[in-house]
Amino acid sequence: MNLLIDEKLKQAAGLLEEGDADLWLTLVRESSRTHDPILDYIFEGHVVWPSAFMVTRSREAFAIVGSLDALSVESLGTYKVIPYVQSFRESFLPFLEKLGPKKILINYSSETATADGMTHGMYLYLQEILQGTPFRERLHSSQELIGSLIGRKSQEEVGRIQRAIDATLGLFEEVTRLLKPGMTEKEVAAYLSQRIEENRWKPAWDVETCPAVFSGPQKGGAHSSPTDKAIQRGEVVNIDFGLMIDGYVSDLQRSWYLLAPGEKEPPEGLKKAFRVLIDSVDLAVKALKPGVKGVEIDSLTRNHITSQGYPEFPHALGHQVGRCAHDGVALLAPPWERYGNIPELTLEEGMVFTVEPRISLPQWGVVTVEEIVKVTPQGGVYLSKPQKELILVG
Amino acid sequence: MNLLIDEKLKQAAGLLEEGDADLWLTLVRESSRTHDPILDYIFEGHVVWPSAFMVTRSREAFAIVGSLDALSVESLGTYKVIPYVQSFRESFLPFLEKLGPKKILINYSSETATADGMTHGMYLYLQEILQGTPFRERLHSSQELIGSLIGRKSQEEVGRIQRAIDATLGLFEEVTRLLKPGMTEKEVAAYLSQRIEENRWKPAWDVETCPAVFSGPQKGGAHSSPTDKAIQRGEVVNIDFGLMIDGYVSDLQRSWYLLAPGEKEPPEGLKKAFRVLIDSVDLAVKALKPGVKGVEIDSLTRNHITSQGYPEFPHALGHQVGRCAHDGVALLAPPWERYGNIPELTLEEGMVFTVEPRISLPQWGVVTVEEIVKVTPQGGVYLSKPQKELILVG
Repeated sequence: MNLLIDEKLKQAAGLLEEGDADLWLTLVRESSRTHDPILDYIFEGHVVWPSAFMVTRSREAFAIVGSLDALSVESLGTYKVIPYVQSFRESFLPFLEKLGPKKILINYSSETATADGMTHGMYLYLQEILQGTPFRERLHSSQELIGSLIGRKSQEEVGRIQRAIDATLGLFEEVTRLLKPGMTEKEVAAYLSQRIEENRWKPAWDVETCPAVFSGPQKGGAHSSPTDKAIQRGEVVNIDFGLMIDGYVSDLQRSWYLLAPGEKEPPEGLKKAFRVLIDSVDLAVKALKPGVKGVEIDSLTRNHITSQGYPEFPHALGHQVGRCAHDGVALLAPPWERYGNIPELTLEEGMVFTVEPRISLPQWGVVTVEEIVKVTPQGGVYLSKPQKELILVG
Repeated sequence: MNLLIDEKLKQAAGLLEEGDADLWLTLVRESSRTHDPILDYIFEGHVVWPSAFMVTRSREAFAIVGSLDALSVESLGTYKVIPYVQSFRESFLPFLEKLGPKKILINYSSETATADGMTHGMYLYLQEILQGTPFRERLHSSQELIGSLIGRKSQEEVGRIQRAIDATLGLFEEVTRLLKPGMTEKEVAAYLSQRIEENRWKPAWDVETCPAVFSGPQKGGAHSSPTDKAIQRGEVVNIDFGLMIDGYVSDLQRSWYLLAPGEKEPPEGLKKAFRVLIDSVDLAVKALKPGVKGVEIDSLTRNHITSQGYPEFPHALGHQVGRCAHDGVALLAPPWERYGNIPELTLEEGMVFTVEPRISLPQWGVVTVEEIVKVTPQGGVYLSKPQKELILVG
């Protein structure tokens, strides 16, 4: 029995009740190829054949799976497993008829990838199976359930995120001792990758951009890989990096400044920009309370930065972290078309967000921090010890 | 420039022509979470924001991607990249209007996961973007294109599969020297996992069931994990195992028999069953020609086994291998509901299939082999040196 999975399945049953729904259905196949992200929260491993993982409002969990997949689902000890050989529908339809759900939640959402694990082909397959039954008209998006299910972190989950954060901050301290002019971005990244391997951790996202290391004025932006460029005095270095430990991740950024010859501290313009950045983070963190919309938090930070004459950062202020670096549904984001309605969702207690504004400075590079913060009724609580000053390299 | 990707994009343009279509559109977001399997063939890495990877009939490749993802797509050197900051649709719609495609292929299929990488939410998003345009009615499944694109292996691809096969067969020979009564299934699996690590290869699928090691009469079936059960004399041992080398995989099975005290060779009943099994493989391999339907191949083997009084195997006869163990669209499978129309698809030259029947014997265990075979106009050509006799352990 996996305690985290058990916890999530119980939570899901409660959320069905909150949402007045009767059944939550995760319908997948070849799950190692097209992978419903929610499957990681409710099952370990993969299934090959069409499979239904289901939670009912009466707090039962059922799985209808191909016979060859049955043992691995049974061994989890959480689901009542109904195996089939030839036909999924011949097991699935009688199950539905017996349960008689009035409202069925399935995993699709045009607004967020997290709740959008069902492929269009599987949707058509389900439609076809349900043809001529009343259930076809009872399908609804599980976006709200998934948003709360992933968002409301348990103590165990927060503890795991905390461990990933602490280890990441420890490695950032090592970077501070390591950094010197002439090192290439790739050399810094290689050091961190080496330390990950030595500790048998994993990078929180793709190894190509985890860590991402940037120095000086830049073109690529947050998702590009470290280069052979040598780090120079008078440049800002920033690193975007996270670890996965025990299945949970961190996602953090720090900024360093390599003092130019003769400098004892950063130039005034750079110091001022960093101060504005940190103040803008504080504004967001204070406001991170249940019931507030993500777009409101984003705009506090965004407006503070632009009001000081800096350009707007070209991305969302923050996202949730958990099983992966872009976790959860609610987002601290501006009302841009590409985010759909997600910025309008309200925060819930226990959600864990990054806060990551940035200011691009043509002379020195990009100043940025990325903190991790938990939502509480009193406002955000830092899980990461926040960066308050540029880290100076002499 | 990645040669394999370049090769596949050129091939796709040709297939658009064959299918009288103008544009192939792969629409994804957060591709490390919900991953369109075809993306591995046409791009390296992941994108976060809504992104369109497109091939036109005039042999051009375009990518409309979020600004933070642009550099990593550009660095591939294959796509003309159109980056956006706030709105995907504001770049996408003018592109479509300029191109004016009459037939657009998108990645959905209720019948196969391989061509079903588009989520239902992204389908709805696309529908919404195309509202009021003629393009909304011009969307079709790319299943046929993807089937041929993945199925027709280039020489380079076959070469990579061959390397994975050869390495796997080498490890099976090591297992033959290793096996003895009293070893547990898990010990055998651990040895193979150790050898993978030493060689810096990867398992071809999930580490929990790759290798899968079975001994004696069994319950779990092909997708379950090795156990602490000790291997006994008088039992059949079979292993299902594959390697990923240079991004391509093998997927092979072999059967061993541990002679019982006093035995010089396997019992007659066991020998006979194995002979029937091997004959049934030969029937399939001879018939693996372009234009033949997968269901016909499956039934040759299936019927041969049942005609000799053995039970039918509870799975498909074979699947394609390539970038992963369950690759491609066409399948050697019976006409069961869960396979939809896929068994009716015809084979194409250059497809690479497993052939993997099995016979369960209550006294001894499961005899099975899994070979890998390439489709040619003269019939199947073995890429794996086929197993013709039970491997005996004294």
